[in-house]
Amino acid sequence: MSITESTETEIRGTRRGGGRDARRAMRAQAAVDSRKQSPAFIKSTLPKYNFFPEEQLDKICANGARILKEIGLEFHEDEESIALWKKAGAAVDGQRVRFDESMLLDIVKTVPREFTLHARNPKRSVTIGGDAIVFLPTYGPPFVRSLAEGRRYATIEDFKNFSKLTYLSPALHHNGGTLCEPTDLPVNKRHLDMLYSHVRYSDKGFLGSVTAPERAQDSVDLVRILFGEKFVDENAVISAIINVNSPLVFDATMTGALKVYARANQPCIVSPFVLSGAMGPVTVAGTLSQIYAESLVGAALVQLYRKGAPHIMGTFATSLSMQSGAPCFGTAESSMVQFGCSQLARRLGFPIRSSGALCGSKITDAQAAYESAISMQTNIIAGNNVIMHTAGWLEGGLVMDYEKFVLDADQAVAFARLASSVAVDENQLACSAFSEVGPGGHFLGCAHTQANFETAFHNSPFVDNESFERWKAEGELDMVARAAGKVKRMLEEYEEPSFDEGKHEEIKEFIAKRKSSMPDSWI
Amino acid sequence: MSITESTETEIRGTRRGGGRDARRAMRAQAAVDSRKQSPAFIKSTLPKYNFFPEEQLDKICANGARILKEIGLEFHEDEESIALWKKAGAAVDGQRVRFDESMLLDIVKTVPREFTLHARNPKRSVTIGGDAIVFLPTYGPPFVRSLAEGRRYATIEDFKNFSKLTYLSPALHHNGGTLCEPTDLPVNKRHLDMLYSHVRYSDKGFLGSVTAPERAQDSVDLVRILFGEKFVDENAVISAIINVNSPLVFDATMTGALKVYARANQPCIVSPFVLSGAMGPVTVAGTLSQIYAESLVGAALVQLYRKGAPHIMGTFATSLSMQSGAPCFGTAESSMVQFGCSQLARRLGFPIRSSGALCGSKITDAQAAYESAISMQTNIIAGNNVIMHTAGWLEGGLVMDYEKFVLDADQAVAFARLASSVAVDENQLACSAFSEVGPGGHFLGCAHTQANFETAFHNSPFVDNESFERWKAEGELDMVARAAGKVKRMLEEYEEPSFDEGKHEEIKEFIAKRKSSMPDSWI
Repeated sequence: MSITESTETEIRGTRRGGGRDARRAMRAQAAVDSRKQSPAFIKSTLPKYNFFPEEQLDKICANGARILKEIGLEFHEDEESIALWKKAGAAVDGQRVRFDESMLLDIVKTVPREFTLHARNPKRSVTIGGDAIVFLPTYGPPFVRSLAEGRRYATIEDFKNFSKLTYLSPALHHNGGTLCEPTDLPVNKRHLDMLYSHVRYSDKGFLGSVTAPERAQDSVDLVRILFGEKFVDENAVISAIINVNSPLVFDATMTGALKVYARANQPCIVSPFVLSGAMGPVTVAGTLSQIYAESLVGAALVQLYRKGAPHIMGTFATSLSMQSGAPCFGTAESSMVQFGCSQLARRLGFPIRSSGALCGSKITDAQAAYESAISMQTNIIAGNNVIMHTAGWLEGGLVMDYEKFVLDADQAVAFARLASSVAVDENQLACSAFSEVGPGGHFLGCAHTQANFETAFHNSPFVDNESFERWKAEGELDMVARAAGKVKRMLEEYEEPSFDEGKHEEIKEFIAKRKSSMPDSWI
Repeated sequence: MSITESTETEIRGTRRGGGRDARRAMRAQAAVDSRKQSPAFIKSTLPKYNFFPEEQLDKICANGARILKEIGLEFHEDEESIALWKKAGAAVDGQRVRFDESMLLDIVKTVPREFTLHARNPKRSVTIGGDAIVFLPTYGPPFVRSLAEGRRYATIEDFKNFSKLTYLSPALHHNGGTLCEPTDLPVNKRHLDMLYSHVRYSDKGFLGSVTAPERAQDSVDLVRILFGEKFVDENAVISAIINVNSPLVFDATMTGALKVYARANQPCIVSPFVLSGAMGPVTVAGTLSQIYAESLVGAALVQLYRKGAPHIMGTFATSLSMQSGAPCFGTAESSMVQFGCSQLARRLGFPIRSSGALCGSKITDAQAAYESAISMQTNIIAGNNVIMHTAGWLEGGLVMDYEKFVLDADQAVAFARLASSVAVDENQLACSAFSEVGPGGHFLGCAHTQANFETAFHNSPFVDNESFERWKAEGELDMVARAAGKVKRMLEEYEEPSFDEGKHEEIKEFIAKRKSSMPDSWI
C-alpha cells in the first residue's frame, strides 16, 4: 500500500523547525555522542539460528571425521608441526597426517569458549565468543575506490584514512588488519606502517601481520611494548587471520605465523578458505564437512603449540559461478554454508568468525547492496561472534571503497540495534499511549511519542525517505553520492585519540629500528 | 581476503567456450525451463525464527488483551458489524466495541490453519499457511519508473506489462493485485481491466478489488465465471487486501469489501497498517500489542461474517523518521516488528502475510537494495507465508519500477532456494570428491563437480562477478542497466498462457456489461 498523500502531509507537519544548518549541526553532535556512547561490542540477545537439524549436522561431522581419518591433511615444509602431531598420536605419513576425530576433540577441550581481546583504550576491549558480536572492517584489498577518484592502487595514505574512519565508526568495534594494501611501501616493511597506523589513529584493537613469521613476530613485539610483556603473555591483545590452504593443506608461511601468535598466547582466526567448486566440493554439505575437518585440525594445532591459547574458528566460504568461474557472494548457498559453520562452531565450543558485507560488484550499486545486506544479516542471525569485512568491500575483496565503507558501517549500526535487547516493559508496551490516543487518533504528538522518539529508531544519515519532489530538487542524488560528502566531513573532523607519549615514542623507535635492519624489498 | 590472481586465472580457465550468442541462447532456454519446472509455491524447510522469548510474547498479548478490553475498536458507519459483535457478546457503546480476548480466541478457532488458494491453471494453485511461502509482486503504486522513461503515472499498458512479467517470473507464485494503478482508466471501472489483465496474461492466482463493496462483488462474480459457482463457494480462488484504519478502526469501505469476500468463502488478508509513531506507538512492543489486538478482531469479524471462512493475518508495519516524518523501510525496528508478527500469527494459528522488498529510495540504488534485501530476508527467516511486495517496489510504494521488478524477482529465486530443503546425503556430502581430489588438489574438474555443477548454485543473470577489466570493457554497467535489457527481452519473448476460449468470452461479456451499466467516474 502506498502512503496516502494526506497522511504524508500530516506526518511531515511534525518536522521540527530550525533550518537545514541547525539540523546538520545537531546531526554532527549526535554522531559524536553516538560514538562516545556506543558500546565496545554487541552483547547480542538474538537467538542463534539453527538452519540444519541436528541429525544433518551429525552426518556432516561424521563425514568430516571420515575425511580426517581416511584422507587426512598435509603440512607443507613444516617438520615441527608434523612432529607435534606424531607425538599427539596422529598417523603421520610424510607430510600427510591422518587423525582420529576423538583425539582432536580431546585436544581442543582447552580452547577457551570466551575471552577478552584487549584494546589500548580499555573501554574498547571486546569479548570474543558466547553471545558477543564484534564488527571489523574489510581486510586485504590492493585497490581503493572513491566516487571522486575511481579505482586505483591503495597507498599508506588510504590506510591511514581507513584507520581514522574505523575509529570514527561507532559500530566498527575493532580496527581489523590490512584495511588496504599500502602498495607504495616496500613489501617487507609495510606491516610496520600498518601497525603504526592502527595504534596511532585509533584506540580500538587490531590484527597483526601473517605474511611471514618474522612479520608476525614484529606484531607481537609491538604489542608487548604497548601492553607490557607480562600482560601480553596472560591476555589476548592482538589477533591475526590464518587462512588454511584449502583443501586440506597448511603451508609453512601460515603455520609459521600461527606458531608465533599461539606461543605468545594470542588468538588467531584460522579460516578454511573455500570457494565451493574449486577449493571445496560444489555442494553445501560437502563444503561444511571440509570446513569441519580443517577447523578441528587448526584448533588442535594451536593447542599443540600452546595449551589453552585462545582461538577463533574462521570461515571464508562462498561459491563459484560455474558458468564464468568467478566467485559469487550473498548467494543462498553461501548463506547455507554460513549457517552451518556457525552451528559447527557451537558444537565445538569455538568462537566463530565469518565475513560480512561481501559482494562481487565493481561499484556500490544495487548488486553490491543486495549481496552485502544478505551476507551481513545471515552472519548476525547465524550467531557469529567476529564479523570481518563488515565495511567497504567491493569486487570480491579486491577493492576497499570509501563510500561503501561509511554506508556499510551505518548498516552495521542498524544490525547492532537488531542484535541488542529490545525491552518489553510498560514503557515499551506503550500502555499510556493507547489510552491517550484511542481509536482513529494519531500518535505523533502524544506524550509517549514525545518521551521516546529520540531513541526509538536508528536514523541513517544516508537514507533518503523524503518526497520525490524534494529529492529531485536536491539533485537526484543516489546513496553513494550522499555518502561521498560524509567521508570528506568525517576525515576533516577527525581528531586523534589520546595516546601515552612514552609508549608512542617507544613504538616509533621500535619501528625505525626494525626498518633500518633490512633493505627494502618489493616482492 | 581477496582472491589471488593466480587462483582467479585458474578458475576462469574452466569457462566453457561457444561464444557470447550461444551462451545467451542457452540462458534464454534455461529461463523457460526454469519457469516450467518451478514449483507453484515454496514448501519451506526453514526453521521459523523466534526473535522474542515466549514470556515477552505473553506480555505483548496481555497488553493487546488490555487494549481490546479497556479501549476497544471502532467500526465506522457499519451497523451490521456492530450488531454482529453485540450478538457475539462484545460490549458495544455506539461505534466503539470492547472485547474479551477469550471470546475472540474462541471465535477464531474456526480459522483454517492452512488452505489451497486455487489458480486458473491448477498447477499454479498455492498452499496458504503452515510451511508454505508464496511470493507476490508489489501492490498499489500510482507511478511507474523505468531506466528509459523515468518516473511517470502508470497506465493500463504498464499493468499488462507487469502481469506478463509476473507470469514469466518463476519465483512470483501469484499475480498479486493492483500491480500499478491504471490511472488512464476511470476510477470506477479500472478494477475490471485489472482483473481481465490478471486472468488473460497470467495463469497464476490474483487479488480482487477492495476500493468499494460493489467492486469486491465484481471480483467475486468474475471468479465465479472462471471457476464455477459451486467451486468458489467451497474453495478459495481469490483473495484481497483489507487494511485496518489503524489505530483501532475498521471503516465501512473495508468492512463492506470484507463481507463480500468472507461470505463468498474467499480469504482476505486483513492488515493492520502501522507506521510506528503515527498510526501506532513509536515502540516495537507497543506496535505489536496493537497489531495483536487489531488482527484478532479482524479474524473474528471474518468468522462472524461466515464461520470457517479462510483468513490471512496481514501486516504492514514500519517506522517513521522522527526527524523528517517520512516512513522508513528495512530498518532494525521494522524487522523486530516483523519477527514479532510472525510469532503472534503462529500463536493464533493464522496464515501470515507480510511485506517483502520495501524501500524508501527513489531509484534502484544501494539504498533500495540494502533495504529490500533486509526486509525480504527478515520475512523469509521469520516464517511468513504470503509475502507481498516481493518485486518492483520503490519510493515507499508510490512507484512500481520495471528494472527493480526483475531484479527483485531474481532475488526471490535465491530466497526460494534458501527456503527449500538442502539434502545431506552421500552425493551432497561429496564423499567421492574428497577421495578423488585430496589435499592441495582442486575440485574444478572432478567427477563430483561435473555431475553436480549445473544444479549446485542459483546463477543470477543480473549479477556481475566478472573481472574489473571485462566489466570496464563492457561499458561499466550497473545492475539496473543490466536489468533494463532483460525487461525488454522478457516482454518481447512473452507468450500468452493457454486459456479456455468459452470462459474467455464469458469474462469479456461480463466486463463489457458491467462497464456499460455505469457512467465513467474519475473520483
